Amino acid sequence: MSDLTDRLAEGLPPGALAVDPDVTAAYRHDMADFCPAGTPAVVVFPETVEQVRHVMRTATALRVPVVPQGARTGLSGAANAVDGCIVLSMVKMNRILELDPVNRIAVVEPGVVNADLSRAAAASGLAYPPDPSSWESCTIGGNIGTGAGGLCCVKYGVTSEYVLGLDVVLADGRLLSTGRRTAKGVAGYDLTRLLVGSEGTLGVVVRAVLALRPAPAPRLALAAEFPSAATAGAAVCEVMARGFTPSLMELMDAVSVRAVNDLGRMGLPESTQALLLVAFDGPDRVAELDAVGELCRAAGATEVVPAGTRAESELLLEARRQALPALDRLGTTMIDDVAVPCSRLAEMLDGVAAIAERHALTIGVVSHAGDGNTHPIVIFDAADAEQSARAQRSFDEIMALGLELGGTITGEHGVGLLKREWLARELGPVAMDLQRQLKAVFDPLGILNPGKAI
Amino acid sequence: MSDLTDRLAEGLPPGALAVDPDVTAAYRHDMADFCPAGTPAVVVFPETVEQVRHVMRTATALRVPVVPQGARTGLSGAANAVDGCIVLSMVKMNRILELDPVNRIAVVEPGVVNADLSRAAAASGLAYPPDPSSWESCTIGGNIGTGAGGLCCVKYGVTSEYVLGLDVVLADGRLLSTGRRTAKGVAGYDLTRLLVGSEGTLGVVVRAVLALRPAPAPRLALAAEFPSAATAGAAVCEVMARGFTPSLMELMDAVSVRAVNDLGRMGLPESTQALLLVAFDGPDRVAELDAVGELCRAAGATEVVPAGTRAESELLLEARRQALPALDRLGTTMIDDVAVPCSRLAEMLDGVAAIAERHALTIGVVSHAGDGNTHPIVIFDAADAEQSARAQRSFDEIMALGLELGGTITGEHGVGLLKREWLARELGPVAMDLQRQLKAVFDPLGILNPGKAI
Repeated sequence: MSDLTDRLAEGLPPGALAVDPDVTAAYRHDMADFCPAGTPAVVVFPETVEQVRHVMRTATALRVPVVPQGARTGLSGAANAVDGCIVLSMVKMNRILELDPVNRIAVVEPGVVNADLSRAAAASGLAYPPDPSSWESCTIGGNIGTGAGGLCCVKYGVTSEYVLGLDVVLADGRLLSTGRRTAKGVAGYDLTRLLVGSEGTLGVVVRAVLALRPAPAPRLALAAEFPSAATAGAAVCEVMARGFTPSLMELMDAVSVRAVNDLGRMGLPESTQALLLVAFDGPDRVAELDAVGELCRAAGATEVVPAGTRAESELLLEARRQALPALDRLGTTMIDDVAVPCSRLAEMLDGVAAIAERHALTIGVVSHAGDGNTHPIVIFDAADAEQSARAQRSFDEIMALGLELGGTITGEHGVGLLKREWLARELGPVAMDLQRQLKAVFDPLGILNPGKAI
Repeated sequence: MSDLTDRLAEGLPPGALAVDPDVTAAYRHDMADFCPAGTPAVVVFPETVEQVRHVMRTATALRVPVVPQGARTGLSGAANAVDGCIVLSMVKMNRILELDPVNRIAVVEPGVVNADLSRAAAASGLAYPPDPSSWESCTIGGNIGTGAGGLCCVKYGVTSEYVLGLDVVLADGRLLSTGRRTAKGVAGYDLTRLLVGSEGTLGVVVRAVLALRPAPAPRLALAAEFPSAATAGAAVCEVMARGFTPSLMELMDAVSVRAVNDLGRMGLPESTQALLLVAFDGPDRVAELDAVGELCRAAGATEVVPAGTRAESELLLEARRQALPALDRLGTTMIDDVAVPCSRLAEMLDGVAAIAERHALTIGVVSHAGDGNTHPIVIFDAADAEQSARAQRSFDEIMALGLELGGTITGEHGVGLLKREWLARELGPVAMDLQRQLKAVFDPLGILNPGKAI
């Protein structure tokens, strides 16, 4: 064993440390394709805050980089190893420490799986809204690191709205407590929200106080078929402008609809250019769904299918859930994550279609339409270098288009390695300068997840 | 004119600069009593971003402190002048630049009065929820600086949930743009939320992108009279535990109820120990109000008065609006702002009553009960030094009690000068160290609102 593993082992229980290359290789990267991934020197699985502090103290003493990881379901390479690093896998710190229905909070360790927290909350009549696609496997620590979103955000917002306080181990092993357990609090600068979305570059989350909400009613959904992105986009704008607050509003383009059909089970209309899925979960959901159905027809929908029951609703939404797996079957995929103002959604979709045509590539787009958050999925043959290069160019052009439309290069997936070069284009030199200085305050040696985001 | 005013005048229009001591004296402090206030060298009223940048460049060049101000309705001394400073009054930058119902955002200058934005939003079927008591006069810039709350927060949250992006002039005059115009975005560290609640110590907000919500239905309220803080607190816990989301849930103690009666008009029950006001503004509000009325009776309410109409509701809520003016008539007041977990509210109220008794003082308490955010108002005779000292001790003991109950020293008023010594007690040395370093990143010369908060 090396000096590093010897020193780490001093403060860790047996089995908390893996150096076998066959094991460590499994922890090299998250789910983003085409991001470089190094080889870790060691993977550590701490079970206590004190063990995490020991790891960080050791890393600081030896100047070894540390890459924190959750379930590695991320899509930006933010959890990718660098050569010789300590991978700090938080998956064994997976206890729900408190679940308090009066104060509507949960206190959790970072390795708790999103779905486990959601189910535990539901058992108490509560909900933890953030629901990334990977919710059955992704961890709360990873959600906090990326500032994860999901389908719920049009009504319920993103992870950062639900993080009240954090315990964080700093690069030098000090333990920082931020925020509060109360609904409100303005004592000092908001370090909590500075840490949410920081991709493990400022500290290692070891405990989180999360806000919960009362469980909503079962949602009721409709599907509406549109002849163009423009008509679908107009319907989305109308829904927002008329003051509706759906609990979900997803838009699938023709490519993703056809891909789902090809998967074999859905029987979606082949002729549609855009399929809009809208759900409500409030007390007026039946009336709201009716009204939105009418509004879709008025905006040009060729067909509107409202669900009469909860089961029918979930069946309609299954189309959306199948979109990513269906597109994945068509080739290698690069998933983009560009959010634009809702009113520019149609322009974004038409722009992506033009980029696909220009580069002779298939690009499917699923969107959290109510947030203007599009996920263009560029499909290509990774064995074909020339096609891969075109895919990369399309991916970049999609980000450029998003910025041009007043949007952001990342709505919810984060910067990681994938969009690092684009961050400066969005933020500009003044913000970049401050961000770099903030990083240096938390991590003066630059050992925490080096090379990511900033 | 001094070198300072000469240099300032070079980049400002005539009339944008006041040095007359009679004028500048009016800008010495906000509405917090008992906080030291210095004498500004000059008060500047910029009208453009470029003028603000000129002021900050000049301040940096001459190493002169700058104190940003809005309407000076703050309650923590955060806007108080320091001797020889430039007061930077943002009240003339008061334009609503955009109000966009599709994307549900407003873009505003910092001097826009909260009520003006609320009314403009309402005219478009939208709402800007944060509603501090001073909403008719306080500015959005001040709301952002303090992280202001209000009565709405139990359902709608605080200012920081509504700030999507900021333009900020830094201490050295550079212009920083943070955040986004989109519903979601995770590009880089969340500088926007770091700035919200930073009390003008990190930069000067010159423009804000704010999220709006669809306008709610007119609220329907009830009043419930309780024989003790414990029974009222139990009712509050039940409301939360059963998953209700009132749009307002306020609790007045016996002292504040009697003070409102003494003001002459309300005719509230003199015997009550706690008056709970609950309102709903959702589609189920009639049924919800009924259910909460029942629940209050079951928890021990001696009387429950539901409003049948919107007008009756506003009449009931008038009691709450009169509480602060009514208490102000009884003597000099120090308004505290301690938030505790909802479940500890009754303990907090009983604890405050015990502190009042121990110090032989009158302390009235109004609370945003759904948030656990209490405002104990210590009443005393400022001409009596011994009584003033007891008042100060009570004020401190109230904060200590809040921390003991798992709360925070400030739910929504901020730290300013008033609670500066207490901040370190809440945050601890690690967080304080980081906060000081963050301050130094933004303001290395320490010229921005020196001596406040951190």
